[in-house]
Amino acid sequence: MRLATLRDGSPDGALVVVSGDGERMLPAGSNLLGAIEWWDEWAPRLAELAAEVERSGEPLDQTRLAAPLPRSWQWLDGSAFETHGRLMQVAFGLDPVPTDRPLMYQGVSDRFYGPFDDIPFPDSSLGIDFEGEYGVIVDRVPMGVSPDEAARHIRLLVQINDWSLRTLAPIEMRTGFGWIQAKPPCSVAPFAVTPDELGEGWADGRVALPLEIEWNGCRFGAANGAEMLFSFPQLVAHAARTRELVAGTIIGSGTVSNAAYAEVGSSCISEVRAAEIIAAGAPQTPFMAHGDRVRMEARASDGRSPFGVIQQRVVVTAAS
Amino acid sequence: MRLATLRDGSPDGALVVVSGDGERMLPAGSNLLGAIEWWDEWAPRLAELAAEVERSGEPLDQTRLAAPLPRSWQWLDGSAFETHGRLMQVAFGLDPVPTDRPLMYQGVSDRFYGPFDDIPFPDSSLGIDFEGEYGVIVDRVPMGVSPDEAARHIRLLVQINDWSLRTLAPIEMRTGFGWIQAKPPCSVAPFAVTPDELGEGWADGRVALPLEIEWNGCRFGAANGAEMLFSFPQLVAHAARTRELVAGTIIGSGTVSNAAYAEVGSSCISEVRAAEIIAAGAPQTPFMAHGDRVRMEARASDGRSPFGVIQQRVVVTAAS
Repeated sequence: MRLATLRDGSPDGALVVVSGDGERMLPAGSNLLGAIEWWDEWAPRLAELAAEVERSGEPLDQTRLAAPLPRSWQWLDGSAFETHGRLMQVAFGLDPVPTDRPLMYQGVSDRFYGPFDDIPFPDSSLGIDFEGEYGVIVDRVPMGVSPDEAARHIRLLVQINDWSLRTLAPIEMRTGFGWIQAKPPCSVAPFAVTPDELGEGWADGRVALPLEIEWNGCRFGAANGAEMLFSFPQLVAHAARTRELVAGTIIGSGTVSNAAYAEVGSSCISEVRAAEIIAAGAPQTPFMAHGDRVRMEARASDGRSPFGVIQQRVVVTAAS
Repeated sequence: MRLATLRDGSPDGALVVVSGDGERMLPAGSNLLGAIEWWDEWAPRLAELAAEVERSGEPLDQTRLAAPLPRSWQWLDGSAFETHGRLMQVAFGLDPVPTDRPLMYQGVSDRFYGPFDDIPFPDSSLGIDFEGEYGVIVDRVPMGVSPDEAARHIRLLVQINDWSLRTLAPIEMRTGFGWIQAKPPCSVAPFAVTPDELGEGWADGRVALPLEIEWNGCRFGAANGAEMLFSFPQLVAHAARTRELVAGTIIGSGTVSNAAYAEVGSSCISEVRAAEIIAAGAPQTPFMAHGDRVRMEARASDGRSPFGVIQQRVVVTAAS
């Protein structure tokens, strides 16, 4: 089942069920934040619509799409790819971070950009970077669940671009308080999908698909989500240790990254710069500038695009 | 003007305007999250009700009160008291954190406990601690505002108990990602007040009032909010540097703490333990246990209690 959100002037938008080819839709008569709160009631109704949309849906105009959740009460982003963590320590000039437990921060969740939105930044000197990620949306998760129990609360999978400002990131990281200025709102790909939509691409609590990324039309990377050190159920259980998770909580994987980054490429510019530091002592690749474009698309083994495409342009709102 | 939220079965509760003596109320016909989104329209209407409630309000049953905002899209907590920062480095055994810019993390905001709620924790070995704070609620703040501009978006002041789990805090802080497990939901005192309600108690963008705290009926501290190194307008501008702040964003001061802590006492247990470490090499005061109670009340110079009283009990949900 594939779900999306149409802009309709309301803050949460209008939930639609989308056909397998992404061409047709049927309105669900709610919004996704409302539906995920009562998922057990909504899921059968949405499944019926998912069958119906293959026969009789209306044309879907993807330019009308918002993020599947245009806002949510909670966004918790992990950093579950060991290679990414190791390279970011090089990029930031920081000491190694312990990896015996999941890494996670709480980010801004009152706004998620849609897949084709221009993204405003105040200043091009801040080190504008993308981060290609996968994520899960959970319904209500009781405090203290095990990873096995947490897995049953993972209702939808999403693909995310976690915009990051690298000049500010190490400054905030050194405080121990996590990121505020370095992490403006994220973007989300068109479709939130139930795990069964991915077939073998949902394996061991991980999105085992390559995330194809292009920067200004050039291939940048196609790292695979299978290499997460901690699975999504483990991340959910980590987040729920001392808090109940509100329905609609989105939990991210952190930047998708592979040990074979030299061959498959990366999912953020900082990793490439770290590799350049390792190879040549200094970074060469610049960060993004006004007008730069990024495209992200996860690719299933049959060539399909389960989450649809993120395609965005950076807009710097003031001269730097 | 003093505002409060009655539990009415809805997630955001029912906004009421409260009399100066805290004894009477009038319903406002909205909820606070809705009103703060359209504050310029709502403020005159609420001011009329505030005049009327002094003559003709209904009796207010404080046991029906939720937090002024039972949930919000964003909670950003500063750590603006230098003494607190210094003592916490001792308590956590961490290196000094730079103080040339505000410290801030993003915390859980889908739930704020009411002033008299029992507070559930999964385990008494986690170092259960209170943190007495002040906070502000802003309407929509554009990205990139100056502190002067930010000041005009501070619409309401609140008093907060930022529950903290000290066993987990330094582990999470060492990652640089901030706190997830160490920071379960906060509690908020009954009344959100407009800054004019405090008179001289709102000075230089700070709540210049002592925060009287009792633990299990014994005086614990009365530190004054005037000693913030950065003002609330500075904290708001810091938060808004790379993101627009959604209306209803709550920004906290961090634990109220004074250089004269030996005389005035503290607003969290960890500070007392740090002082014990400094004085005697080891902490003596234990953290909170099942059944422990904490009471917090800000006191105006005329003896009034502008925010009302937080009075809560710790409930450990599982044997440790």
